[in-house]
Formats: sequence, C-alpha cells, structure tokens
Amino acid sequence: MYPESIKKLIESLKFFPGIGEKSAERMAFAYLEFDKEQVEYLIDSMQETRAKIHPCPNCLSLTDQDVCDICSSPARDHNVLCVVEDPKIVFLFEKLGTYKGMYHVIKGLISPLEDINPEDIGLEKLLDRIKKEKFTEIILAFKPSVEGEITALYIKQILDGLDVEVSRLASGVPMGADMEYIDSLTLERALEDRKKIS
Amino acid sequence: MYPESIKKLIESLKFFPGIGEKSAERMAFAYLEFDKEQVEYLIDSMQETRAKIHPCPNCLSLTDQDVCDICSSPARDHNVLCVVEDPKIVFLFEKLGTYKGMYHVIKGLISPLEDINPEDIGLEKLLDRIKKEKFTEIILAFKPSVEGEITALYIKQILDGLDVEVSRLASGVPMGADMEYIDSLTLERALEDRKKIS
Repeated sequence: MYPESIKKLIESLKFFPGIGEKSAERMAFAYLEFDKEQVEYLIDSMQETRAKIHPCPNCLSLTDQDVCDICSSPARDHNVLCVVEDPKIVFLFEKLGTYKGMYHVIKGLISPLEDINPEDIGLEKLLDRIKKEKFTEIILAFKPSVEGEITALYIKQILDGLDVEVSRLASGVPMGADMEYIDSLTLERALEDRKKIS
Repeated sequence: MYPESIKKLIESLKFFPGIGEKSAERMAFAYLEFDKEQVEYLIDSMQETRAKIHPCPNCLSLTDQDVCDICSSPARDHNVLCVVEDPKIVFLFEKLGTYKGMYHVIKGLISPLEDINPEDIGLEKLLDRIKKEKFTEIILAFKPSVEGEITALYIKQILDGLDVEVSRLASGVPMGADMEYIDSLTLERALEDRKKIS
C-alpha cells in the first residue's frame, strides 16, 4: 500500500524502543516534510555518532576522544569511583553536576535467571582498575533490584581485603512521591534504612 | 556533557513530532546499540524516501512512480473522487481496502483565522481535474471542524452547475465509543444526522 521506501522507513523507525506502527507512520510522514537542512543534520549526526562514538578504554563510558573527558580531567576526584551498569547512567549523573569522581561501566548485572554470570559483565577489568588506581571509595550505583543486589554483593566480596570503602546508593521513597502509591518493597527498604534526624 | 555527535543526534531526533528531550535521549542510546544492518537499513530508507517520494502529478498523493499506482490502475473506479486534506489520509483509506475510487489531495483546509484562502490550497487544480475527468461523485473527506466545513461548502459552491454529486463523510458517534465521553458537538451532529432503521 505504501510506496516501498516509505514502507522501509516505517519498518526501520520501529527499531527504536517504544515506537510502534502508528508512531512510526507519524514520524515517517513528518520526516517527509522536514526541510533539507533538517534531513542533512539528522543523517549526518546518525553517521557521525556511529563513526566517532566508542567506549573509553579506561572506564568504558561513551566518548568521541581517545580517553574520555572524565578519565583525563585533572579537576575530577580520582579517589572515588562510581560503578554503573550502563553507559547512559554516566550522563544521568553528569547532568546532576554534583558528583566529581570517576566512573566505571560494567556490562549489565549478574542475573542467575538469565544465565548472566560475573565473567560476562566485565568485573575482572573493574577489579584490575580498582587495584591499579587505588580508589578510596567505590560507589555501586545499580538499579534497586534482585540483580542489582546480587551484583553489589559479589563486587563487595571480590574487593574484600582491599583497603577501600564500598557504598551503594540510598534506596527509599523518591522525592515528591505520593505515599499511597509507593510499593511495599520500597516502603520496607525506606523504613529499614531510616535516618536519624540530628 | 554528551559527546558532540550524541548531542547533535539528540537535537535532530527532536525534529520528530512528539519526541521530547527524554525520548530523544532514549532513542539516541538505543540507536548506538543497533547492529550494523539496522543502521544501514535506517539511513538507506531515509535517503531513499527523500530521493524517490514525490507528489503524483495527477492527484498529489505521495508516490515513487511517475504517476501513482491508484491513478494508473484500470481496476479502480475512475468515476468517484475522494478529496482529502493531506497525503497521509490517502493511506488511511487504502488501509481499509473498501474504497475503490480515486483520490485528490488538496494542501490543507481554508482557514480565515490563519489567513489560508481558497487559492492557497490548490482548489483550481482540483476543479480543472473534476471538469476534465468527469467524475459522477465527489466525496469530501475533511476532518470535522470549522475549517473542514468551510472548505467543503466552498468546493460545493465552485462545483455548482457541474453534473456531479457531492457528499461528505458521515459524522457522529465513533464505533465502540463510550456515550458519556462523547463531546456535545459530536452528539448534536449524530442526532441531527440520525438514520432511519429500515
């Protein structure tokens, strides 16, 4: 029904997460009405991103430099390391602008159910780096889930014996949340981790 | 904060309707994880669509042929013409698979408020075509709105004197709708246009 190239375009827009048939159709027709500059900017940036972006060899976050801006910055605190499960989490933290330490990206989380083992997510490289760079604190910033807990416990274990403090993100009631809509697991954790008001 | 090319990619994904900052970021990171074939398919289809798709010189719907498949098909009913305000509406009707006539696309609707006049939306070309191709029925398939009504009335007027039936889409309660959520204008129209059960 659609001309072949529009059909192909709709199919390929559906590669994006959350884009179904209707949204892809809407996007394809909008794309046909982009002006020439917009089309060039879009296709250029797509090609450029794929050509230039690669993992930083040191921390595995995404960069277009030989070594990423954070690893190579003398202004950052090289004593603290934040370990994240996905390169995009680095940018979430950077948006805050308050964290001044270093990062290390592992490839997802340990998941016995999905048969993802410690050796699959690059923990060896993490351990090597921690030994070499002598951090004083490691912050494990994984999502609060069974996999996050398992991975955090496993890392804590392999760091045993090294002179380094290991912490995890506080978990509890999100700011601004309506108490009645908080799930019981979150509430339980918030109660358990309650903080003394001093 | 983001590497330059990712920043550009996020900016350009926001050209699409309904894609804000968060969605564009999500799409950009997903894009970075596409495999090589997906990237090629996506960029190819984007380039191909822009190179090949153009308005059919006869009906102004979108095609990759000299004249579109519908205009050139002897299997279609060349006596009935459906006039739509946007090329994508043609594909909506084609998806139904029940309409077998021809189409004509005008460039939007007359809108006194937005200073869009009859001469801005290509009604002259429509009139020429109707005179030349001698249709027996013209179906005006505009969206139910003030602009749709004005445009329909205007077309009805300029066709006055020609031996052709002019109809518009039925307007009323959509199938499966919950009666309590129907707006009063729609309900009014549905009542006015009530059909005798025979």
